[in-house]
Amino acid sequence: MSSISDRQPGRSGHLVIIGGAEDREGAKVILSRFIELAGGPSAKIVVLTAASTAQKELWEIYERAFRDLGARDYSHLKISNREQASDPRHADRILNADGVFMTGGDQKRLCAVIGGTLIDSAMHRIFRERGACIAGTSAGASAMSEHMLATSTADDLLPEKGETSVSAGLGFLQRAVIDQHFSQRRRLGRLLEIVAQNPYLLGVGIDEDTALVVENRAGFEVIGKGTVTLLDGRQMTSNFLEVEQSQRLELINVKLHLLPAGGRYFLHGGARSQVPAALQEAIAAVTSVSTVAAPEYSAPEKA
Amino acid sequence: MSSISDRQPGRSGHLVIIGGAEDREGAKVILSRFIELAGGPSAKIVVLTAASTAQKELWEIYERAFRDLGARDYSHLKISNREQASDPRHADRILNADGVFMTGGDQKRLCAVIGGTLIDSAMHRIFRERGACIAGTSAGASAMSEHMLATSTADDLLPEKGETSVSAGLGFLQRAVIDQHFSQRRRLGRLLEIVAQNPYLLGVGIDEDTALVVENRAGFEVIGKGTVTLLDGRQMTSNFLEVEQSQRLELINVKLHLLPAGGRYFLHGGARSQVPAALQEAIAAVTSVSTVAAPEYSAPEKA
Repeated sequence: MSSISDRQPGRSGHLVIIGGAEDREGAKVILSRFIELAGGPSAKIVVLTAASTAQKELWEIYERAFRDLGARDYSHLKISNREQASDPRHADRILNADGVFMTGGDQKRLCAVIGGTLIDSAMHRIFRERGACIAGTSAGASAMSEHMLATSTADDLLPEKGETSVSAGLGFLQRAVIDQHFSQRRRLGRLLEIVAQNPYLLGVGIDEDTALVVENRAGFEVIGKGTVTLLDGRQMTSNFLEVEQSQRLELINVKLHLLPAGGRYFLHGGARSQVPAALQEAIAAVTSVSTVAAPEYSAPEKA
Repeated sequence: MSSISDRQPGRSGHLVIIGGAEDREGAKVILSRFIELAGGPSAKIVVLTAASTAQKELWEIYERAFRDLGARDYSHLKISNREQASDPRHADRILNADGVFMTGGDQKRLCAVIGGTLIDSAMHRIFRERGACIAGTSAGASAMSEHMLATSTADDLLPEKGETSVSAGLGFLQRAVIDQHFSQRRRLGRLLEIVAQNPYLLGVGIDEDTALVVENRAGFEVIGKGTVTLLDGRQMTSNFLEVEQSQRLELINVKLHLLPAGGRYFLHGGARSQVPAALQEAIAAVTSVSTVAAPEYSAPEKA
């Protein structure tokens, strides 16, 4: 694995966390922002389709979208198993990238294939050391948190104990859990259950064609068409430990924030300098990404 | 209008606020509680169907249910216009009742027909002066608040400005707005818009086959099958005054409480003596019913 490119040292990294179904045909506001944050038309973009079993088809969609947006250096990294994900030649492509885009599919597949591999490590390194832009949509968005919403049988606004479970994600966000297609698939109940289980994790529900653009330790912006829903259970009281499986949960004092596209929430200065106190902790939870202990596997010696 | 019966002086009144579709065939937990709170099998029950245009059909449903539950003195008060609602003979029947049950239909119709009439006044008098039980389901539940959710085009979890409006209700609850069929019809968005418009009003969303049993100035209980959702916007920040019609609302710091059936929330003592602080104000908002300034129209002299 070659050393990291130092073309843009010290630039602050961004995460673009997309709720799925982002516009790929029209103005492509979200994909356009991703390219801009990666460095513009000449940025090296790698599309990672490992969450899906239809990798070729997904690549074709993004190939067309990125071409339409004037990007000049984008390529597909097709990874189907952990052996490929641990191949230093593949990791090198990530290490040289300015932006990595993780498509949808199944977040459990994505993490099973790349979690803890050289690919994973390389993404963390370019994000932290060189300020690359890491984007994920749908399953690719869910996978960005350390504790990842893995499975759920919930189909309601109301959480029931035992419907929803987490597993290990890629760890870009340490103190938040991402959910996607949020309003469209009415996922409030399942995200509330995650918060009931883990009141120290912020629930982040992102609508379709909507993205949270996170600037490390500074703040975030909501772009696209929908809303980002934050569920803050840190001062919540619940009966989670007392009730049986499948019982409805009692949750008292969950703070709910609805942040529609167009909002900018930065802790210090910026376009919106006065953030309500109740939101400041939530912003800190979403943006405390640089302390992530990335899985720093050593690259094998090159032959 | 005759003087109020004093059979049960000083008994504390109850409101039974039902989210619609309560069980009328099986164990009938909610209807059974209504009869119990009205005084048991010998209580005088009046069924008010004025919210509906199918008054006879609704009466037949409740006639059968109350008979099955062993009630012995129940009758139908069919009111179709304000003239009937202002007839002292009809008001007398309310004044002599121990329990009044308002069926579903359309809450705007209900209030247009009985709001401010002798019937309305009589219901408030027996509730306040003699501790009668006043129940309402669906439209009959919505009508119980002073500010009543009247119309909405919202069909989503996310509130947009201008989708939802209030009008004048019957005023049993002064500091809360009731919504019904809450989870089943996914009405979070419309209740959030009401709270955005009126942060001093508590949003109360009641599920189907679920009831909030309110004891005046003391506390409440959730019975039935579902959950009661409370939305407390008193410390909320929103962009309601700044955005155009149909724009998505930004809401920061709405307190969300989910209270499933089985929960008892009383401010002083009772089965659950320690209520979390964050819920105490909400309980006060729901239970401050006795200060209601009922429309005390004078009855016309009898001929």
